[in-house]
Amino acid sequence: MTERRHEREFVRTFFTSPTAIEGEEDSAKMIRRAAQLRGMQAPDVWVPDNEDATAPSMRDEGVENIIDVVAEHGADFPGEIHPRMVWHRDSPATRYQGFQHMLEIASSDTGAIEHIDGFVIPEVGDIDDWKKADEFFTIVENECGLEEGSLAMSVIIESGESELAMGKLRDEMGKATNNLERLFLFVDGEVDYTKDMRAMTPTGELPAWPELRHNTSRGASANGCIAIDGPYDDIRDVEGYHERMTENQAKGMLGIWSLTPGQVVEANQSPLPPKTGSWLLDVDGEQVELASEDGVEVYDGDRLSLEQTDDGYELRVGGDTRHLDEDELHEELLGLTSYVPSMDDIVDSMEEFEAAKEAGRGAIAMEQSATLRLGETEVSISKDRMWDEATYQAAMTPISLFQDVYENRPDQHDELDERYGAGVVERAMEVGL
Amino acid sequence: MTERRHEREFVRTFFTSPTAIEGEEDSAKMIRRAAQLRGMQAPDVWVPDNEDATAPSMRDEGVENIIDVVAEHGADFPGEIHPRMVWHRDSPATRYQGFQHMLEIASSDTGAIEHIDGFVIPEVGDIDDWKKADEFFTIVENECGLEEGSLAMSVIIESGESELAMGKLRDEMGKATNNLERLFLFVDGEVDYTKDMRAMTPTGELPAWPELRHNTSRGASANGCIAIDGPYDDIRDVEGYHERMTENQAKGMLGIWSLTPGQVVEANQSPLPPKTGSWLLDVDGEQVELASEDGVEVYDGDRLSLEQTDDGYELRVGGDTRHLDEDELHEELLGLTSYVPSMDDIVDSMEEFEAAKEAGRGAIAMEQSATLRLGETEVSISKDRMWDEATYQAAMTPISLFQDVYENRPDQHDELDERYGAGVVERAMEVGL
Amino acid sequence: MTERRHEREFVRTFFTSPTAIEGEEDSAKMIRRAAQLRGMQAPDVWVPDNEDATAPSMRDEGVENIIDVVAEHGADFPGEIHPRMVWHRDSPATRYQGFQHMLEIASSDTGAIEHIDGFVIPEVGDIDDWKKADEFFTIVENECGLEEGSLAMSVIIESGESELAMGKLRDEMGKATNNLERLFLFVDGEVDYTKDMRAMTPTGELPAWPELRHNTSRGASANGCIAIDGPYDDIRDVEGYHERMTENQAKGMLGIWSLTPGQVVEANQSPLPPKTGSWLLDVDGEQVELASEDGVEVYDGDRLSLEQTDDGYELRVGGDTRHLDEDELHEELLGLTSYVPSMDDIVDSMEEFEAAKEAGRGAIAMEQSATLRLGETEVSISKDRMWDEATYQAAMTPISLFQDVYENRPDQHDELDERYGAGVVERAMEVGL
Repeated sequence: MTERRHEREFVRTFFTSPTAIEGEEDSAKMIRRAAQLRGMQAPDVWVPDNEDATAPSMRDEGVENIIDVVAEHGADFPGEIHPRMVWHRDSPATRYQGFQHMLEIASSDTGAIEHIDGFVIPEVGDIDDWKKADEFFTIVENECGLEEGSLAMSVIIESGESELAMGKLRDEMGKATNNLERLFLFVDGEVDYTKDMRAMTPTGELPAWPELRHNTSRGASANGCIAIDGPYDDIRDVEGYHERMTENQAKGMLGIWSLTPGQVVEANQSPLPPKTGSWLLDVDGEQVELASEDGVEVYDGDRLSLEQTDDGYELRVGGDTRHLDEDELHEELLGLTSYVPSMDDIVDSMEEFEAAKEAGRGAIAMEQSATLRLGETEVSISKDRMWDEATYQAAMTPISLFQDVYENRPDQHDELDERYGAGVVERAMEVGL
Repeated sequence: MTERRHEREFVRTFFTSPTAIEGEEDSAKMIRRAAQLRGMQAPDVWVPDNEDATAPSMRDEGVENIIDVVAEHGADFPGEIHPRMVWHRDSPATRYQGFQHMLEIASSDTGAIEHIDGFVIPEVGDIDDWKKADEFFTIVENECGLEEGSLAMSVIIESGESELAMGKLRDEMGKATNNLERLFLFVDGEVDYTKDMRAMTPTGELPAWPELRHNTSRGASANGCIAIDGPYDDIRDVEGYHERMTENQAKGMLGIWSLTPGQVVEANQSPLPPKTGSWLLDVDGEQVELASEDGVEVYDGDRLSLEQTDDGYELRVGGDTRHLDEDELHEELLGLTSYVPSMDDIVDSMEEFEAAKEAGRGAIAMEQSATLRLGETEVSISKDRMWDEATYQAAMTPISLFQDVYENRPDQHDELDERYGAGVVERAMEVGL
Repeated sequence: MTERRHEREFVRTFFTSPTAIEGEEDSAKMIRRAAQLRGMQAPDVWVPDNEDATAPSMRDEGVENIIDVVAEHGADFPGEIHPRMVWHRDSPATRYQGFQHMLEIASSDTGAIEHIDGFVIPEVGDIDDWKKADEFFTIVENECGLEEGSLAMSVIIESGESELAMGKLRDEMGKATNNLERLFLFVDGEVDYTKDMRAMTPTGELPAWPELRHNTSRGASANGCIAIDGPYDDIRDVEGYHERMTENQAKGMLGIWSLTPGQVVEANQSPLPPKTGSWLLDVDGEQVELASEDGVEVYDGDRLSLEQTDDGYELRVGGDTRHLDEDELHEELLGLTSYVPSMDDIVDSMEEFEAAKEAGRGAIAMEQSATLRLGETEVSISKDRMWDEATYQAAMTPISLFQDVYENRPDQHDELDERYGAGVVERAMEVGL
């Protein structure tokens, strides 16, 4: 059976920092600072990046910096630590260098390796290339007295070859001649993937690569691993970063790369249920969040309006106007609205379903009602949603993620308690167990 | 070569009914009722569901109910009967239970098995898991004196593993140690797939999973099987159900799950060509069906208007206004309109092409013309479409589906004759043979 | 390592011509004319089409015509020549006929084969079917004194089976019993693919098949081949053809089928960077190209307007109006605008980055500024884009394509020099080497 073989079952954030910067008094400045992040600013997986973020001439020094900084701060770092090594499917020299760096870090007598959970291998090719990397891990473990398979291996998917490899992994994992069970994260690297695929766009913007992200998420699911999306370059575009994460979550890709502590905060929060629920209104194809004012959900844009007439209602959306009686309006509004449940709502529903199940009922209706104000007109709606075992199981995903976070990240307890309230947190930690 | 090995080459509807309900006088009530459906309310494949639709504690009784109801009503049921058994890739106990249930049904001396065409196996994993199920089918067949391979096996794709398995099936089917040629339907199960992929959406709505549906359709195509989409939960949303089916059909997924006899009616009709043709107008990116009034195709919405001016026409779409002369307008309208042919139209075109081919011509132009009324203004358009062998072959898909339905579902003859008229039906049954 | 094994690393155009037309004085008329195309009208790959474009009864004569016309004009044809043979995964008779035709062409004493770069094999099935074709190539080469592997093989992907085969190719290429390294182009054939998948749409229009195109592009990338999209039937719809090519390019599918010399011109130009840069404005979700007037980028549509007010600006998009101060406006416009760089711009940026790299800097900011006129109001914006090694590598794709074209197509030098100016061409040929 497919099982998860690592301590973390969910990883929200993959934060890279350059290991050595030229011309600075302390070339380890960036990783020294990153190692001291705490709380929402600290990622689930921190990646001292000895590959692309660090100049080729600085990478030997980068290895020394990793050893130094991790030995000093690793014990206290709240997330996992997975340095990225150099590697390339087309270059034996690069692969050998990556091996030497891993060996150097693991055999250092500073004890740094005790705080390192694994290594990240970029630019992997087909499955035989993954095996080459895995073999180097095994040799490193053997040389350094570590248990075979104890170092996690994460890979960056940045070529068509490696995208295909994820589809073949189940045939290879478990063979006596490898330790591929050490695989942990599958991380998309869209910039190099775009180059490998020779794709181009008029403005130079990256393609969205929906199929790659699907395939990475599926590969992770089929092999007990975790899918992570690549970097979002436009650091100022917080809204765009959130939209990308929402898209990813609908694909089962719950983690994302972060380039700054600010992005780490956003990405640590994004997959967690909201503190308060909210209503969405479909306005001419766009989902608009309604403002909640004194218990009324308000839309005050220009694209949709509702007016009461002598014999019913006039609903205008964009250029189209429709005349509806009360029942038709209610039906129409049920179709146009949806509710985003809060953590509290989710826990409530799960508890209610658990109680019903205990009482021998397999399905129950959960009611959601609201008063809407569209322009000047107020109307009330109420919608039922059937919950059965499958609904319950699907609702479990954000709760399991929350539980994994809460268990593994005590440094975020204050922020999480403040976000949700201690009562909700306590109930969320109990539900579904 | 890839061949279709089952009687039905097309399946429009996959209708599940709970096999045993607790607390009812007749726990078989639901399947007893379903077994007596006829005509458009009866599905192509009926699935007495001894898995998720039935409480775990009721499943042994469900097996008895299947035997009982199918023995009594199976001979007269107009569709095929494929009960769903329990199975799970991660649970040997569940798999053994599924085997025992199949054996019990097949060995019952009521003769129920004579009316059962196969079994549906949910929650399959990778290809080796499919082989375990196949082996149980073979043992059941051998124990019960059935021909090896005579029971069809359908699978529910509800994990990344099984999605990947469809890509490997051609390497396995035909080996002497299995009977995987028995495979019949590949059915997507999006609720459990969402759970397996750990995907989540803000409102709890299911992701659309376009890639899964593509891969299922492709897997079916490459292995002579039939692709079926999963359940559409919002039973009241008939329009949404039809939109989903139209999307699926463009992927080659021509069947869908139905949860109620009402959904069965919709899904039995959806892939059949319409009785009357209609014109579509692209209004600012949205396809609007024009109303046909006395031979004129009318658009009377607000988002597009056309007015004649001194020197030509003024066409307004959304906020943009363009001045066009007569030729430019005609060209523009050709681009904005498209025609949805009726069954009669399709048969006409195919007959015309067949005659042309017989006369030694490889390609002919088919003309479609219409008078449009946009706001106050009427204009006539006429468009040619080249038909060659490939166009002809592609147009054959809905006709082949119709022929398959008409041959296998005499109980729907009245409704089909009434829909299309006996003359059109007769010609549709002759074309392309 | 994955390498490109053919002279052309990029192919923009795949132009098919019928090899023999019934009832014409010269049945070779079409290929005789096509063989004399030059410059932008001549494709990168020319395909005398002895399959679907030619009536079955004319295909033996088509082979003679290929021999005749290629012997006479082949030496002077500026692109490569890859005739399409008959083939079908399900028909041994068709496969044998394809082999006989190849043998006949290759063994002709006219020397035609010297000008033929390979053959195109349609309707391939799974990987074992590809091997059957490859084996016939090897026999033909051996019989005709050609070097083993010297004839390129291109395949048309028009079935689910062959789509899956692309995912398995890396496991097969390089084995001693085949010469699959001869593979060159993977060409999607959407019409027959639609038939094979049994897909249908209301209007009979082809589905867009985004997943197929992704998988073809990925298969090409993983195996050192080149991805080509299938025919675009609506020959008059030049805008639609360009939109399709832009979509394809974002998938790494840089070539496309052409049915006429007019389409060849469009498709030869589409992947080349534009002569002049331009600004795009996102107007309510649609990208609108701004008109450049005296150095000002002008939007004069109705859907967006900007007006200066006493205390800032009023920006109206569709029905929504927002009040912004100067900084907010600037920020908003940065989000709504993007720049499509010209060839000159790309070369400039690459040279600047190369210089910076030589000076030891790994990343530099490139500034793009413009004055916009939205309605009556003018505002200036300026945006920085960070360039690092990855940006540089990604920008290299259109330049590498240009270099490949310029080296291999001297007949297009005049048109390219005229398009870009000789100075820009010269610099583009130097950059990145």
